[in-house]
Amino acid sequence: MIETDISEKCINTIRFLSADAVQKANSGHPGMPMGAAPMAHVLWSKFMNYNPKDQKWLNRDRFVLSAGHGCMLQYSILHLTGYDLSMEDLKQFRQLGSITPGHPESGLTPGIEVTTGPLGQGFANGVGLAIGQKYLAARYNKPGFDIFNYHIYAICSDGDLMEGISSEAASLAGHLKLGNIIYLYDDNHISIEGDTDIAFTESVAKRFEAFEWQVITVDDVNDIDALEKAIEAAKEETEKPSLIKIRTHIAYGSPNKVNTAGSHGSPLGEDEVRLSKENLGWDPDKHFYVPDDVKEFYLEAVPRGKEKQNEWEKLYGKYKEKHADLYQELEDAINEKLPAGWKDKLPLYKPTDKPVATRKASAKAINAIAPLFPNLIGGSADLAPSTSTEIDGSESFTAKNYAGRNFHFGVREHSMGAIVNGMAITPGIRAFGATFLIFSDYMRPPIRLASIMQINPVFVFTHDSIGLGEDGTTHQPVEQLLALRSIPRITVIRPADANETTHAWRVAIEHKKGYGPVVIVLTRQNLPILDHSAGQGPENLEKGAYILRDTDGDPDLILIATGSEVSVAMESYQELEDAGIKTRVVSMPSWELFEIQDDTYKKSVFPPAVKKRIAIEAGSPIGWHQYVTDEGMVIGIGNRFGESAPGEELMEEYGFTKENVVKQAKKLLKK
Amino acid sequence: MIETDISEKCINTIRFLSADAVQKANSGHPGMPMGAAPMAHVLWSKFMNYNPKDQKWLNRDRFVLSAGHGCMLQYSILHLTGYDLSMEDLKQFRQLGSITPGHPESGLTPGIEVTTGPLGQGFANGVGLAIGQKYLAARYNKPGFDIFNYHIYAICSDGDLMEGISSEAASLAGHLKLGNIIYLYDDNHISIEGDTDIAFTESVAKRFEAFEWQVITVDDVNDIDALEKAIEAAKEETEKPSLIKIRTHIAYGSPNKVNTAGSHGSPLGEDEVRLSKENLGWDPDKHFYVPDDVKEFYLEAVPRGKEKQNEWEKLYGKYKEKHADLYQELEDAINEKLPAGWKDKLPLYKPTDKPVATRKASAKAINAIAPLFPNLIGGSADLAPSTSTEIDGSESFTAKNYAGRNFHFGVREHSMGAIVNGMAITPGIRAFGATFLIFSDYMRPPIRLASIMQINPVFVFTHDSIGLGEDGTTHQPVEQLLALRSIPRITVIRPADANETTHAWRVAIEHKKGYGPVVIVLTRQNLPILDHSAGQGPENLEKGAYILRDTDGDPDLILIATGSEVSVAMESYQELEDAGIKTRVVSMPSWELFEIQDDTYKKSVFPPAVKKRIAIEAGSPIGWHQYVTDEGMVIGIGNRFGESAPGEELMEEYGFTKENVVKQAKKLLKK
Repeated sequence: MIETDISEKCINTIRFLSADAVQKANSGHPGMPMGAAPMAHVLWSKFMNYNPKDQKWLNRDRFVLSAGHGCMLQYSILHLTGYDLSMEDLKQFRQLGSITPGHPESGLTPGIEVTTGPLGQGFANGVGLAIGQKYLAARYNKPGFDIFNYHIYAICSDGDLMEGISSEAASLAGHLKLGNIIYLYDDNHISIEGDTDIAFTESVAKRFEAFEWQVITVDDVNDIDALEKAIEAAKEETEKPSLIKIRTHIAYGSPNKVNTAGSHGSPLGEDEVRLSKENLGWDPDKHFYVPDDVKEFYLEAVPRGKEKQNEWEKLYGKYKEKHADLYQELEDAINEKLPAGWKDKLPLYKPTDKPVATRKASAKAINAIAPLFPNLIGGSADLAPSTSTEIDGSESFTAKNYAGRNFHFGVREHSMGAIVNGMAITPGIRAFGATFLIFSDYMRPPIRLASIMQINPVFVFTHDSIGLGEDGTTHQPVEQLLALRSIPRITVIRPADANETTHAWRVAIEHKKGYGPVVIVLTRQNLPILDHSAGQGPENLEKGAYILRDTDGDPDLILIATGSEVSVAMESYQELEDAGIKTRVVSMPSWELFEIQDDTYKKSVFPPAVKKRIAIEAGSPIGWHQYVTDEGMVIGIGNRFGESAPGEELMEEYGFTKENVVKQAKKLLKK
Repeated sequence: MIETDISEKCINTIRFLSADAVQKANSGHPGMPMGAAPMAHVLWSKFMNYNPKDQKWLNRDRFVLSAGHGCMLQYSILHLTGYDLSMEDLKQFRQLGSITPGHPESGLTPGIEVTTGPLGQGFANGVGLAIGQKYLAARYNKPGFDIFNYHIYAICSDGDLMEGISSEAASLAGHLKLGNIIYLYDDNHISIEGDTDIAFTESVAKRFEAFEWQVITVDDVNDIDALEKAIEAAKEETEKPSLIKIRTHIAYGSPNKVNTAGSHGSPLGEDEVRLSKENLGWDPDKHFYVPDDVKEFYLEAVPRGKEKQNEWEKLYGKYKEKHADLYQELEDAINEKLPAGWKDKLPLYKPTDKPVATRKASAKAINAIAPLFPNLIGGSADLAPSTSTEIDGSESFTAKNYAGRNFHFGVREHSMGAIVNGMAITPGIRAFGATFLIFSDYMRPPIRLASIMQINPVFVFTHDSIGLGEDGTTHQPVEQLLALRSIPRITVIRPADANETTHAWRVAIEHKKGYGPVVIVLTRQNLPILDHSAGQGPENLEKGAYILRDTDGDPDLILIATGSEVSVAMESYQELEDAGIKTRVVSMPSWELFEIQDDTYKKSVFPPAVKKRIAIEAGSPIGWHQYVTDEGMVIGIGNRFGESAPGEELMEEYGFTKENVVKQAKKLLKK
């Protein structure tokens, strides 16, 4: 009885902290926290293992608020359970410089694991986190040492489940039997346009059963017993992920706005907040009110969490003694300490070596270093034979073998991106995902979120231009390279040959968490190995642009190229020199790496006095103007798509030939 | 018996036309056509209504090859049934300039309705086509005049069904009870990385039942009777879309490559083609062989199709008499003839009118013209109250009311894009789809495909910058505008105020099929009505950029801005003039519309001699360099995301203020 009373009080505290914060900000989503408050209460007080004073504890349970708009729910419970999130922070909800933004942001707010908001992303991130847990457990747990046994909890909404990405991720999670997933579905029957039955009448339960999930139904979120039993049943089910479908009422407690779309994304209004408080027996004159017994109740999480972590630390201490090597490997991986001598393993090539596609050179680089990086894991969206991203000699990650390093994501690029993000967030893991460059369009939301979170997954995109040939218009990227470069904080690298590909992977491996994602863009077709003997070495890829071939004295012309077009520039070089045009060739694999160089270096590559410059890139010309200046030009693909034909013919048709470069250069210099 | 014999011969003809063409091109996907050949045979000879001599017949059945990589299947049957697709065309498969590209392209190849290839798109396009049919039927069919009663057929693959977009589209199709959908699922158990059971073990049938589809199973595609019965059952079911799950064997007939991933995307090889022919009793020395009786059998499609169309034309002729108004309305819509005087209905605003968000001005424009354009239909991905795209006084398009014009796509941006494409392809229909600009990232593949197909849906993207405010980082577009502009053949318009918004819609309405999609980018926040009295009028939006305010004589400085930043430029104007800086303000709502102007006009807006220019846009600065020249600058958002705070505060924080513009201008002119 006492327990019930305090529960109700706790839940109402969450409800009204949320409603008050939204009201004070005069902006936000009060309905979801008011409806789903019992979920937060039960999870944080009864189920989740966490230590509010050490949000980085390795074996903590993970929580993802896939319905990120309901973030006041999470901020409220994090505040109450003793995270470093003050009442003042709650009052600064949605204000400039606050740590309580309008959707949850990891790295900004203590206790937030994943940045969410764009619907469906958190759902799929959680699958990645679950994979991360399974992988760590498979590699590091030993008999008597259950180092990693945490669960992945999430709250997701109708919107999350309407998004295709959640179907993709759920299908894979069921396939992989990720029993460590426990998702609470906030089934409130309301979305922004009204009742969900205007667009969403499918049987969610049946769909998830089709995906091989355990589906449990709770008829009323306020039935705390039923809710607890459901979560217990989910924990007991270790072979299937669990979806707990919980009937809630948006803006529960609000006499006039309960069950209305109006309470989804707008403050209730002062009067309605007042009426809601009165309705639930709360003092309408109190704002941001936390009763003392509620405070006390939730703050038990602190000693409880410390004790849990202490127990675990003891076990981990013994693990260190008994499994010293594994312990050290894990710690190094978590601390992003790279193994000694790893760079020596990287493959290098001579100009006399036969031409090789950069996707193949990428495979060599991956496989050269894979043995030294046991936690480098990833795979492809059903294109591994084409993206060349398989780790040789490693097994596949399957329901029967969570130690496998090769992932089969299926034809599911969007969820691959978000799942790889979840894997990459997991301490100690470096994750990669691969598909064709054209299909980066299917996964832009997770790439952007990786940039926002400043996590460091590697995305490998092959078949990077019309040079891929016959697959034609629908498969040939034109604008994708530019569209990726436009994402803040990303690092996009398009290496020019096998050696640059090696260094692209070196840069990617050296790219720490906090830097953002790395995108490596590779060819389908073979490319000659460039001769660096008369210029700077391929290790200069790390600077984004460097002089690959230079003239005597000041150049008349600078040819700038990336990827497969660098060899076209190099072919053109001699003919231009022979024609008396003093030419410099700059390989520019990465705009972003170049932009962070100092001015002196930048000017050494692009002397301001040399304004006749030609950029050559088989993609959109937009954005190159800044490098070629007003007096230069771009040989690109302007306002046109590709075509279906052999790649070499297309490259010729579109002007990526020595002949055209020389012709354009001569024209430019006559100006 | 005779029938069976000819069927087998027909099917083998398709198989080997496909295998031969792939072999000749030495590139392509032979496995799918060999496995699924019976589907094409049955559909084109028994079920589909079409006239090979008039591919535009309004009431033809539509076929979508969602598994676009299997296009040789479709090219083969189109050739055989008498479309304008010669044997020589088949032999030019995947060659430069041919009409038989590596994935099907509408507009290029007779009989191809939709450009497909990127998986899942065709599936969702078909839902849009089905909606189109239902809408046309609801509006134009009358008792005794079943003008539109066609079906939508598709063949889709495992890959299509793994993609999230197909779950989204299927859920909506089931919800809308689109019984005119008949999809054949090529269940071959093979994807590129191997057996589908490495990533795809869900119950597809159960999932589609959850979506309220009729699911029919055919155990063997070669059992023609079973196949026919299944399609008949699908036709009989008018309340539910049908998925016919048909067990096939990839590369059926090939002794060594049947049921292997290797036959998915690579030619079988000369020897294996030979062995396959021998295996199925085909003459291995014959290539591109069509037996005479097969030729004769399929060419019956021509008289059959002509007759079917003739019957329909008779009915349509009577319809013209009996329902002259509707007939005329339909014909005008199909021929994209705009109603007289429609432009007079467009709302205009005075500078003294109160500020209005461009999304609200868009609503006014839509509603002003909606009564004149009964076939302008569309909706939002569960954001209609925010995107302001509802057609007032119109009903919702529901399973019970296919005449409704307001669409509830649910939280499903990706499929919304592809469904809107399918609607836009339907003759006579102008379709639009709306969401927040940030979520354009969820739907880039269909936007690109609209550009490739050069169809003209309108995509309305609101909440277009950090100006949206508190929703924060995850919801604030930065790079999306640039990323959209980078798509070839698109027209992106970001109007500066209510009047420009009116003209954005005017341009969109005038944008015909063949021009590509139009994207209208709108604010959440209010914007003042600009004063055009001292410059060119807002109708000049159609030119992409125009002089909104000018100085006396030659300017020292040109301020270029788009959308909400134009009023910032206008505010800065007077202060700059007062400081003796002769300033021109250019409103530049659309790069693409500007780029198609002649040189004289371009130079009149941006005189080459005036190189001090500042572009002001609350988005990525990339790409502006071409307009501001080497001597100009961009006030944009460089390598940084947004934040959660009130929009006005953010605009100030990020430098989109008169103070900052004036400061930067003075600095620039001191250079």
